[in-house]
Amino acid sequence: MSSSLPPVPGPSRWDNLGQHTQLHTRVFDVLGVRYRHPVRGTERDFIVVQAPDWVNVVALTTDQHLVLVRQFRFGIDAFSLEIPGGVMEAGEDPIAAGLRELREETGFAGGSARMLGTVHPNPAIQSNRCHFVLVESVARSHELEWDADEEIQVETMPVEQVLTLVRNGGITHALALNALLLFNLHRQAAGRA
Amino acid sequence: MSSSLPPVPGPSRWDNLGQHTQLHTRVFDVLGVRYRHPVRGTERDFIVVQAPDWVNVVALTTDQHLVLVRQFRFGIDAFSLEIPGGVMEAGEDPIAAGLRELREETGFAGGSARMLGTVHPNPAIQSNRCHFVLVESVARSHELEWDADEEIQVETMPVEQVLTLVRNGGITHALALNALLLFNLHRQAAGRA
Repeated sequence: MSSSLPPVPGPSRWDNLGQHTQLHTRVFDVLGVRYRHPVRGTERDFIVVQAPDWVNVVALTTDQHLVLVRQFRFGIDAFSLEIPGGVMEAGEDPIAAGLRELREETGFAGGSARMLGTVHPNPAIQSNRCHFVLVESVARSHELEWDADEEIQVETMPVEQVLTLVRNGGITHALALNALLLFNLHRQAAGRA
Repeated sequence: MSSSLPPVPGPSRWDNLGQHTQLHTRVFDVLGVRYRHPVRGTERDFIVVQAPDWVNVVALTTDQHLVLVRQFRFGIDAFSLEIPGGVMEAGEDPIAAGLRELREETGFAGGSARMLGTVHPNPAIQSNRCHFVLVESVARSHELEWDADEEIQVETMPVEQVLTLVRNGGITHALALNALLLFNLHRQAAGRA
């Protein structure tokens, strides 16, 4: 807290009194969660979207290309250029999930994988996390295994060209963008850029 | 497309046949949107979360501190360190919305504001956008105007310390992280880091 700011009471941790499902869908549930303020005693329902954790994969070839996927996205009713990713299975390890999604969506597999970071897609209204996995030395070695209704254009692009898209608004998926920006940050820290 | 990849048919743009509301809440609606594949002719309902656009603000003081907010977040049932932000009003300009949210949440206001970028929080299932605004030369000049149930701890922190948190997982809100990483990228491009 800057010394120029007047003291204000810190925010309280509200008491979670329980939840009920308002809507069940194939990709998430919408809950109403009852909370009570510990000081004021007021009670209110807050809306929470509950989904499995997600994973996004930065996949780097030996010649410094990144694996990108382009697909029609129903949320925005438009095409979107992204990195591979998807929904984790129950109990699945993030790195295993990342390698699985990479292989199924693009046919690429690689030698070494590690975590780039983990975020909350939206802590205000959403309970799940999204994990970012870096896989290096990937090559196309497997058949594609798309889910029903998946149609994916797989591309590889030089890292510097992808980073230009990142800077210029060519990649708008917030989670893909986060993963690529974190990849760039760690790459700079390692002295490779 | 890398020359090593076999040709695959490009993804189709599905035809949007109309939508119905499955759930209405205070913060978003959940729609079922009917789509038909233009080649296969199959029809299916896809789930879309429809919310107003959001705005997040990177606010920089003249002594190179960033304005952060810490609050209890009902989605993750935990505290989260973020940048100021909120829901845009209908027809509101992103920069005007960013300056309004900054002032209301933190009491800070500043001299010059510009866009850092715009993302889709989740193109797969969510239609809205989130805008990132940079406001420079901010100072605390206004009274706080919190919404009902808002309790916000306002902090200022040196830029380099915030970027250490960004690298180390101390800021997990995906959209706040995106804004700070884009701020860092543009700052580097401008030769100030």
